[in-house]
Amino acid sequence: MSEIRQDPTTGEWVIMARERAKRPRDFVRRQARPELPVFLLSCPFCPGNEAMTPAETLSYRDEKAGSWRVRAFANRFPALTPEGSTMRSEEKGFFLNMDGVGVHEVIVETPAHNKPLALVEDAGVEDVLRAYHERYNALSRMSFVKLIVIFKNHGLSAGTSLEHPHSQLVAIPVVPRHVRMEHEVAMRYYDDRGECLYSDLAGHELSTGKRIVMETGRFVVFHPFASHQPFETWIVPKMHQASFGSASAEELQDLAHVLRIVLLKLYRGLENPDFNYVIDTAPVADENEDYYLWHLRIIPRLTEVAGFEIGSGININTALPEETAPFMRELEVE
Amino acid sequence: MSEIRQDPTTGEWVIMARERAKRPRDFVRRQARPELPVFLLSCPFCPGNEAMTPAETLSYRDEKAGSWRVRAFANRFPALTPEGSTMRSEEKGFFLNMDGVGVHEVIVETPAHNKPLALVEDAGVEDVLRAYHERYNALSRMSFVKLIVIFKNHGLSAGTSLEHPHSQLVAIPVVPRHVRMEHEVAMRYYDDRGECLYSDLAGHELSTGKRIVMETGRFVVFHPFASHQPFETWIVPKMHQASFGSASAEELQDLAHVLRIVLLKLYRGLENPDFNYVIDTAPVADENEDYYLWHLRIIPRLTEVAGFEIGSGININTALPEETAPFMRELEVE
Repeated sequence: MSEIRQDPTTGEWVIMARERAKRPRDFVRRQARPELPVFLLSCPFCPGNEAMTPAETLSYRDEKAGSWRVRAFANRFPALTPEGSTMRSEEKGFFLNMDGVGVHEVIVETPAHNKPLALVEDAGVEDVLRAYHERYNALSRMSFVKLIVIFKNHGLSAGTSLEHPHSQLVAIPVVPRHVRMEHEVAMRYYDDRGECLYSDLAGHELSTGKRIVMETGRFVVFHPFASHQPFETWIVPKMHQASFGSASAEELQDLAHVLRIVLLKLYRGLENPDFNYVIDTAPVADENEDYYLWHLRIIPRLTEVAGFEIGSGININTALPEETAPFMRELEVE
Repeated sequence: MSEIRQDPTTGEWVIMARERAKRPRDFVRRQARPELPVFLLSCPFCPGNEAMTPAETLSYRDEKAGSWRVRAFANRFPALTPEGSTMRSEEKGFFLNMDGVGVHEVIVETPAHNKPLALVEDAGVEDVLRAYHERYNALSRMSFVKLIVIFKNHGLSAGTSLEHPHSQLVAIPVVPRHVRMEHEVAMRYYDDRGECLYSDLAGHELSTGKRIVMETGRFVVFHPFASHQPFETWIVPKMHQASFGSASAEELQDLAHVLRIVLLKLYRGLENPDFNYVIDTAPVADENEDYYLWHLRIIPRLTEVAGFEIGSGININTALPEETAPFMRELEVE
């Protein structure tokens, strides 16, 4: 018999399909990944090709070597641009719309064309996180910015065609309905219980222990009780902060290590799967709220969303987090 | 500059990415589809292999020929089964779960292994819709059934690996949060304006006309103002009914023709793309509500959902419905 579990952060249900369940190893998808060069002449993200990108908004450089380690700039094909107005207009007095006001940046994670983030050392991952943090705090001051979405797409099925390792940051002029809904759930929980839902969630995962992947002084990593997808992984801070923009230098340093290990475990355990990750953080105006806790969510792209999910909003997950988490926990990567 | 549009049925926004916009023809993905036989000895959905499936729940037969035209049965690897209890239990007094109670059926659309629904004649599509309708009305009487999701997955990227044309029906024991949220929006609109949001939506699309694909006496087909994906297509009835279960024989007959033409336009215009469709219908307990209107939604799988969509719930659409709808409208398929 299957089991239906509720995601406490949204109230949505997930079907854990036992009849269709697979073992952790069954999710290894051996993909023909071409051997990549360390430098590609035609790649706009490779060193030496900086003129192929819009103006730099950030770079961390080794003064001696004269080369950059991490570099950010506006996306050449931006989803949003910092022009126009957020005034709503109407079509036929019924359909609402506005200009595509916002900021869309690319953060190149390493000069090496062929080095996935999982294989970068701790200090390199820390550079990437510091770049996220710095750009977050610069853009959150712009008056039209309501929420900043930081994410990474790795692999074709995760929505990227550019091989050179990079992340993206989109500052948007609205708080999405989806985000408001999650915050309403968290606010209600806080008003009822006087505790942060996300801290309690991480605490309960720690106390059962069976879905924990790793733990450090500052972070807990687990496959959630109601994982929507196989190997969905959450990295949740132990300190209480609604906004990623409030993370301290020490936290970013610890997160860099945790993120690298988790990505390396995925890389080795599932043989370099396609994945997305996203930093869930409070809207800019809610950065000081007590009811929310920023976290990083990794979604390996191991199964396809199909008609049932599109129609119901309910995912059918064919892996149990109680099986995938120990698989990851016990995998030695160092 | 891009444009941000609001989906009036959810309040969610969609980014219409003009800088990345493609022409309708750019979405043609020529896929190497293997030549399929009309009958496959190993296919459990092919005639003669009925013993390979669980017991039949419905079939329409030609008495003379002795063969079936459409056939339904329980899914061999069901996400949910009609056993267990919907009583919630708790893990650690925090995580809610219940047994996977429900019904999961397969509806085989045609005896021919190699005939996609787009190439079936009107009468054959009508058989399929009648089968949906009959199974909907049989299962909606079961006490634990709260919502019935009818859907079709076509192609690998749409989540199916079985080539033989088939649809699925899942009867679930909860109303998903996602569905409640849409109904709340529709209820509020109804309470405010005294009209059905979905009827008004179809009416506004008809009055602007530019996103209409086709219209019959009983249905309107359009690419919505805030399409979440390229070529997203809605088929909306002109009669007012919250539930697909209330559709009349005449409506099913008209819908069969409309659905066939729309699928054929996709098949010819985009060269047999992968797609999902789903029938959005009211929860069983809300079948007689005035504020909702059932409809059929087709989502061609032409782009990948990436980190931004996962993080924000906001889609970036690279096609304008004002361009894709005329492309489909003007395509002659008969």
